Amino acid sequence: MKSKGLLIVISGPSGAGKGTICRELLRSYSKNIELSISVTTRKPRDGETEGVNYFFRDKEEFVRMAENGEFIEYAKVHGNYYGTPKKYVMDKLKEGKNVILEIDVQGGMKVKYVFCEAVFIFVIPPTFEELKKRIEGRGTETEKDICNRLKNAYNEIGHANNYDYIIVNDNIKDAAEKIYCILTAEKCRLSRCNIDLDKFREG
Amino acid sequence: MKSKGLLIVISGPSGAGKGTICRELLRSYSKNIELSISVTTRKPRDGETEGVNYFFRDKEEFVRMAENGEFIEYAKVHGNYYGTPKKYVMDKLKEGKNVILEIDVQGGMKVKYVFCEAVFIFVIPPTFEELKKRIEGRGTETEKDICNRLKNAYNEIGHANNYDYIIVNDNIKDAAEKIYCILTAEKCRLSRCNIDLDKFREG
Repeated sequence: MKSKGLLIVISGPSGAGKGTICRELLRSYSKNIELSISVTTRKPRDGETEGVNYFFRDKEEFVRMAENGEFIEYAKVHGNYYGTPKKYVMDKLKEGKNVILEIDVQGGMKVKYVFCEAVFIFVIPPTFEELKKRIEGRGTETEKDICNRLKNAYNEIGHANNYDYIIVNDNIKDAAEKIYCILTAEKCRLSRCNIDLDKFREG
Repeated sequence: MKSKGLLIVISGPSGAGKGTICRELLRSYSKNIELSISVTTRKPRDGETEGVNYFFRDKEEFVRMAENGEFIEYAKVHGNYYGTPKKYVMDKLKEGKNVILEIDVQGGMKVKYVFCEAVFIFVIPPTFEELKKRIEGRGTETEKDICNRLKNAYNEIGHANNYDYIIVNDNIKDAAEKIYCILTAEKCRLSRCNIDLDKFREG
């Protein structure tokens, strides 16, 4: 029997580098890892592709899906809706794929209620100064957006205590390796592995 | 401030390959890992060196050390005494070294009382058949010893449920990598890392 995949929730303030770490993780490790693809009402940024980065939907369609119970969680962040499609994630886990869910803390905490067996990782940059620099340097936001993101970042960090692991992103490669290690370690947890020890020792 | 090292307890039945895995771990990963060196009354096997594999002591000296409270745990296994020297381990952890303690389940459970923050890993071979083959193939034991080891192996596996992680040793390199990953992951545990999140977000 194929063992079920692991759901890994990655949160952290905007500017912590979650997206870059996840890309590095997928690039460097062939551990049967897939990113969950969220549904969003936000406009695509340059280079973002439908069905790869997000499923882009208009607000009406998003609301219909939400009312239909098609999301594990959904939330409004910076004026846009983001949702995690339930069927998509469940199917991947059943196939034995390990699914990375990169979401904000609001979403992360909602996932915790549904998937208590998921692993929760919080990513922070080396310093809050660095975080400010990264958010300001992104260049896609207005001053008000930047201010909002900083306020949100401050609040999000206050929720880090609800996570299992914390990764300081001072180096992308190291941070990606840490996530790989957490995945590998969690798969060895006695509470997760399907070894029947009594059957084993009877030969 | 240097962060304290992690104590990793590795147990598993005789023939599971614990020793080989630990050597591979030290060879392939430079993660500040050291093996704890036990004190034993057993005779050195070919190639074993005092202060490297064990501290070899006679029974009288061992008893004196035990009475003096110099062991984290000690036990009689297959007619010989084995003890984990308290000061040696504490000093290494204080220096920030991660210490691997390769001991039987009796010892492992005693360590659990003293160091509840240690990480407990149980190693098993792919099958019990394989275990029999490995124990019989070692060639250093009499038939009675082999029989005892098999009986002990059977009993030890019954204690695996008290461990945090279980590693099936079907490949030395993979098994060593798993221990490395467990070490890396545990260092990222929110409950272990010394990050003051409030201080962090105040900049």
